[in-house]
Amino acid sequence: MSFELGIDDLNDLARGAAVLGTGGGGDPHVGRLMVENVMRSTGPITIVDIDEIDDDDFIVPIAQMGAPTVAVEKMPAGTEPVAALRAVERHLGRTATATIPVECGGINSMIPLLVACQTGLPVVDGDGMGRAFPELQMKTFAAYGVPGSPMALVGERGETIVVDTGSDDKRMEWLARGITMRLGGAALIAEFTMTGAQVRRTAIRRTLTLALRIGRTLREAREAHEPPVTALARTIAGTDYRHLRVLFTGKVTDVERRTDGGFAQGRATFASFESKSELRLTFRNEFLIGEVDGEVVCTVPDLICVLDADNCEPITTEGLAYGQRATVLGIGTPPVMRTPEALAAFGPQAFGFTESFQPVEERIPC
Amino acid sequence: MSFELGIDDLNDLARGAAVLGTGGGGDPHVGRLMVENVMRSTGPITIVDIDEIDDDDFIVPIAQMGAPTVAVEKMPAGTEPVAALRAVERHLGRTATATIPVECGGINSMIPLLVACQTGLPVVDGDGMGRAFPELQMKTFAAYGVPGSPMALVGERGETIVVDTGSDDKRMEWLARGITMRLGGAALIAEFTMTGAQVRRTAIRRTLTLALRIGRTLREAREAHEPPVTALARTIAGTDYRHLRVLFTGKVTDVERRTDGGFAQGRATFASFESKSELRLTFRNEFLIGEVDGEVVCTVPDLICVLDADNCEPITTEGLAYGQRATVLGIGTPPVMRTPEALAAFGPQAFGFTESFQPVEERIPC
Repeated sequence: MSFELGIDDLNDLARGAAVLGTGGGGDPHVGRLMVENVMRSTGPITIVDIDEIDDDDFIVPIAQMGAPTVAVEKMPAGTEPVAALRAVERHLGRTATATIPVECGGINSMIPLLVACQTGLPVVDGDGMGRAFPELQMKTFAAYGVPGSPMALVGERGETIVVDTGSDDKRMEWLARGITMRLGGAALIAEFTMTGAQVRRTAIRRTLTLALRIGRTLREAREAHEPPVTALARTIAGTDYRHLRVLFTGKVTDVERRTDGGFAQGRATFASFESKSELRLTFRNEFLIGEVDGEVVCTVPDLICVLDADNCEPITTEGLAYGQRATVLGIGTPPVMRTPEALAAFGPQAFGFTESFQPVEERIPC
Repeated sequence: MSFELGIDDLNDLARGAAVLGTGGGGDPHVGRLMVENVMRSTGPITIVDIDEIDDDDFIVPIAQMGAPTVAVEKMPAGTEPVAALRAVERHLGRTATATIPVECGGINSMIPLLVACQTGLPVVDGDGMGRAFPELQMKTFAAYGVPGSPMALVGERGETIVVDTGSDDKRMEWLARGITMRLGGAALIAEFTMTGAQVRRTAIRRTLTLALRIGRTLREAREAHEPPVTALARTIAGTDYRHLRVLFTGKVTDVERRTDGGFAQGRATFASFESKSELRLTFRNEFLIGEVDGEVVCTVPDLICVLDADNCEPITTEGLAYGQRATVLGIGTPPVMRTPEALAAFGPQAFGFTESFQPVEERIPC
C-alpha cells in the first residue's frame, strides 16, 4: 500500500535502517539530517507500493557508495544524488518515473528520499538487498538478471562519471570502486535502472515499511519500558524475515579496523557477560560472519546486528569501540535471498569464506 | 598542405614519432603494426592540413593512456579507439568530422591513423603537445582554453567510461588515471573534443609531417652513410623547433624505474665516453630534465631524446638498459609551447621541479 512519509517518520526509519544495515550501509543519521532539512520546505513524499507501479515505468535506484568510515566524515554537498539521476537519464535518453533504494540499510534508505524531496519523484517501497551489502553486484536485481550498467557516479565537486561494463557487474564494481576511491572514498551513484516490471520481478518488497516498523518497534518498546529485543522479535516474526536469534551478549574487547581497497574491513571481538565465551565478527563494511568460540553462528545473507545493550540503538562497524556493551542479533533473510542464484551473488562464499550458508534458525534452534 | 599517407610512410613516421616521444608516449612500433595491418585492406588515409578544416568541424582527438611499461606488454584489442570516439559522439550528440593526435610522439601518433583506417575520417596534421607529455592536462589545447571534458575511456573488454569534470582538467587526469589503473594500466581515450576553429587556435601545426620528416631524415642519412645527428639538426633547423644540441654521448650505467601511480617513473645515469662526466635523466613516462654533473642542461617542454649511438634509433624510457651506448639530444620546442600559459601547464615546475625553464639553445650556446 502506498503512503505519505513525513518528517516525523524519519527518526524511526533511520533507526530501522541502521538495524537492517547490519553494521554497514553508512550511518543513516547523516542522511536523515539531509532529508529532514530539505523536507521541511518540500513537505512529505510518496512511498509507492511495488504492486502500484506500471510495467513500463522507468525506475532509477540512487545510493551512496564508499567505505562507511569515510562517508561519516565526508559530507555530500547534497546535489550529487540528483546529478547522478540526471546523468543516467541523459545517457539513456529516458526520464525517471520513480526512484528506489538499492539497499534499505544504512544511509541508503535515506538517499532516495532526498532525491524524492528534490525532484518530486515517488520512492518505490522495496530494495535490492533487504539489508546492506558492500559490493554493487550483491543485489537481487543482479541475481535475477538486471544489469547494473550503465551507472553514474558523482563526486562532491560535481565530477560526473558514467560507467558501462555491459552485463559484467563485477567489472562495474571494480571500476566504480576505483573511481570512488579517487573521488575521496565516497560517491553518489545511480545504477541498475529498471522498468517497473523488472522491479516487481527482482526487488525485495516493502523494506522501507519494514525499516519504519523496526524503528518504531524499538522506540515504542523503550517508551513502554518493555524489552526491545522481544518486541523486535515479534515484529520480525510477522515479516518474510521471520526469525530473530540473540547470538551473544557481551562487551567489545577488541576491534581491528582498516579502510582498505575502498572498504572498511576488520574484525571485532566480544567477551560474554556470563561466561568465558567469545564472539568474533568479521566485517567488510557490513558484518559478514559471526563465530562463537570458533563455531559459526550466523553468516550472510542472514543479518548480524549489533545493538547497544542498554538502549538497543544499532552500532555500525565504524562506530564499534572497546568497552561497548552489546546485544548481537541474527535475523533471517527472506526466502528470495536464500535461493541458489542469490547465494551465488551474496552468500558467504561470494565473500571468500569457505563456510556454506545455513539459515540462522537452523544453526540456532529456538 | 593535405596529403595521403600510405603503408610505405609508416616506418618513417613511427621512427620520427619515437624521437618526438622524448622517451615516452608509448613505443610506436606496436601502433605501427596495428595500423599497417588494417591499412593493408583499407588503403591510404588523408592527412588534412589545419588551414583546410572548417571552423565548425567537430574534431575528436583519440589516444592511448597509461604507463608505457604496461602499454608495451598489454596489447589493445584494436576496437577500443573507435569505441572511445563513438562514446563521446553519443554523449555529445555530435558526429566527428576528423580526428587528431593529442601528442605526435610515441604510439599516439599512430592511434588516430588506426581510427582513420577504421572509420574513413581524415586525420588533422597537428597535435596538442608537439612531443609527448605524461598527463592529460599538459596540452596546448588546455593551455589555450579548450576543456578536456567530456572524455571517454575504453578498456580491452569494451568497458566504456565517460568522465566529465567541467573545466577542471587536473581533476579529469586524476580520475582518468585511476580508471586506467583499474583497467590494467592502459586504456584508449577520446578527449578535448573541439571545433575546427578551436583546433586552429590551439594545436601545434604539421607535427605529423614533422614526425615523418624526422623519421625519413634518419633513414636517409643512414642509407647515405652520413652522420644522422647532423642531418637531423638540419631538418629541425627548418622547423619551429629550430635548435638541436647534443647534450651527452655515453653509456647507460644505471636505471631506476618503477611503475607507480599509473606512470613509468625513474632516473637513468649515463657515463661519458670521453671524460668522467655523468648525465642524469629524470623521467615520468617522458624524459623531463637532464643534468650533467649536477648542472641542468635541458628541461621540459624542450625535448630530451635518447638515440642509440650506433644506428640513431630512439630509445624509450621503458627500453633503457645497462650498457646501452647513447647519443642524448636536446631539441627546442616551438614558441607557442614556451609562453607563460604553456609553461604553467607543462614547464618544469608543473612537474614539481624547482628549476625554471630556460631554452636549451641558451643553456648550451652553439
